[in-house]
Order: sequence, then C-alpha cells, then structure tokens
Amino acid sequence: MLDAVRAHLLEYGYDALAVDAVADRAGVHRTTVYRRWRDVGGLLADVLAEAADDGWHPPDTGSLEGDLIAVNREVYAALTGGSPITIALISASFRSPQAAEALRAFWTDRYARCEVIVRRAVARGDIPAESAARRLIVAATAPLYHELVLLRSPADGQLAERAARDAAAAARAGAFTEGDSSRPVQATGRSGEH
Amino acid sequence: MLDAVRAHLLEYGYDALAVDAVADRAGVHRTTVYRRWRDVGGLLADVLAEAADDGWHPPDTGSLEGDLIAVNREVYAALTGGSPITIALISASFRSPQAAEALRAFWTDRYARCEVIVRRAVARGDIPAESAARRLIVAATAPLYHELVLLRSPADGQLAERAARDAAAAARAGAFTEGDSSRPVQATGRSGEH
Repeated sequence: MLDAVRAHLLEYGYDALAVDAVADRAGVHRTTVYRRWRDVGGLLADVLAEAADDGWHPPDTGSLEGDLIAVNREVYAALTGGSPITIALISASFRSPQAAEALRAFWTDRYARCEVIVRRAVARGDIPAESAARRLIVAATAPLYHELVLLRSPADGQLAERAARDAAAAARAGAFTEGDSSRPVQATGRSGEH
Repeated sequence: MLDAVRAHLLEYGYDALAVDAVADRAGVHRTTVYRRWRDVGGLLADVLAEAADDGWHPPDTGSLEGDLIAVNREVYAALTGGSPITIALISASFRSPQAAEALRAFWTDRYARCEVIVRRAVARGDIPAESAARRLIVAATAPLYHELVLLRSPADGQLAERAARDAAAAARAGAFTEGDSSRPVQATGRSGEH
C-alpha cells in the first residue's frame, strides 16, 4: 500500500493523491484503507514512518568534514535524484498538517542521529566541546534545502561538499558555541541531549 | 487587485485562491482580471514583482555581524509574523510554476542586493577578499528558512541572531572562499557577479 502511495505521489503529485486511487492501484479494498489510514495525511505519515525505520546512521569517515560531506551527498541525492519523493513530501507538508508533523518528526530523528558526528569531532579535539550539535548539522545541510527546494537553483555538483566544508570550517573556528547554552554537546559519555 | 490576492491568500490559502473570488473581493470585473493576469499564477507573480519593487537595501550597521543580524531579523519577522504572506507564497510555489519562478526571481534579487554586505566586510578587511558573497548570505539566512519553514520548529527568539553570528564567524575564519572560484567578490569597484 505504501509503495502505491509513493508511486502515485511521484507520478501525479499531492493534488491527485486520493485514498480511492491509491487503494485501487495497490489492489486493496477501499474500506480497509479508510479504516486503517483514514485519509491521505495518514498514508503520508506512514510513508515517512517507514522511511525513518531504516536503521540509518551517518557514516564514520574519520573527520568532521568527511562526515558532513557524506551526509550532504545523501541529502543532495535525495533532493535532485530521479525519484524526488522528498520534494513531493515537502510539497505535501504545506497542504496536510499530518504530513507536516510526520516530516518534522522524521527530520528531528535524522538530525538527532547526526549528532554523533559532532560528538566524534569534539572527542577528537577538532572543535570546541561547547559546539551545539544540531545547530552545526543544520548549518551544513540547510543551504542544500534552501538552494534546491526553496530557491530552485540549478543543480550544482559542488554544493553538497562546499556547504559541508563551510560548516566544518565554521565549527573549527568556534562558531556554534555561543548563545545556545541549553544544548551543549559532551565529548565523552552520553550526549546531554535527549 | 493585488491587495485582494494577498488578503485572500492569507485568509484561505492557495487552494481557495481563484481568479473569480479575488476579482469579486477587489470589485474588479472578472473579464478584466483574466485579460490582464490570465490565472492565479500570474496574480501571484505580480504580488511578488510588486514586493520586489520596494527599493529595499540591507542596512549598513558598520559590521558584518550587525548587517547579517539586521537582515536575519527581517527574514525572521517575515516568517513568523502575524501575516505570513511569505509562507503562503512558498506554499503556493509548490503548486504553481509561475509562482515558483516569481519567488525564485524575488529571492535572486534580494540575495544580489545583500551582496553589498559582503563587499563592505571585505573592504573593511574583516573577511578574505575571495569570500563568495551569495554563499555567505545563504549560510546566514538558510537556517531560518530551514527551521521555520521546512522543519517547522517552534519560534526561537535567538535563531536570527545566532545564525547571523555563526555565518560571520565562519566568514572571518575563511569559509566561503574555496571551491567556488567562479564567484569571487571584489573589495572595491563593481562586483564580479552580475
């Protein structure tokens, strides 16, 4: 069923995403779909929940810059690839509060998983111990979303690497350490963040 | 007429934005509207064109950090204020190619106007002369759009200032200078960018 949602979303966009059409496509009885998912928002939320449940963790390349580049390349591929389900979901999030909430939850989880990148950099002594993890990861990834999703700039092969290097340079220079005392990152042991 | 578009968009969103409804609201004959704007996309494009034609220039506070903070406060206010026309237009841009193109043109113009901030910082000797202007400005503003528009994080009074300070610190440390040789900024005279 969720395969049918993804396929339908990619093919026709959110406007044409109706429970009936997706049920027909999946060969599932409409009543069953309504009972389980209620509406399109529910279907989208489950698509994202399934995507989140993939055991993904950021690669450990041995350097802050390398780790951020690896993550940014994945984000770049997701935003520019041949099947831009991410763009379709972002677009849907402006129409369906349930899709918006599901997307927010998905990204919150992904950013939390990426915080280990910052903890490793702090443990190596590459960046100050007070560096705010999520803020650093957002600084690395935000330019990709901004350029590709909102500004609709043409694809740029260097964008992922450049944004990662800029954020790493900023972190090494001590950015991400001030004005955010509520979210410190610790070099050893468990992160102070939940 | 454009006032009616803005009011209608804020009140009902893009879904309910129909030429007929807006014409009625503005007290303009529908035929006139269709002849001049053709469709909703044309109306949105004109709303943005009018917004762009406001003579706006970034404030000159005397420091890179101060200039970026001032711009970010304006972006923050636009994204969180009581009449979030910007969010409505971003949302519409996922539905109307004309609105998407108009938004892209609007932002391209705004980022170009902000490049003077970087030229002033280079002229003061605060950051390297090779700093890529648009890249720096995008680094300062992108976290705001990412957090407030896409991640739908709760409003955070420190966000604007923090992102501005982080980008300024990164620039002073020499970020934004590598891997982008096609877009240098010049300290004096005209920018190399068009």
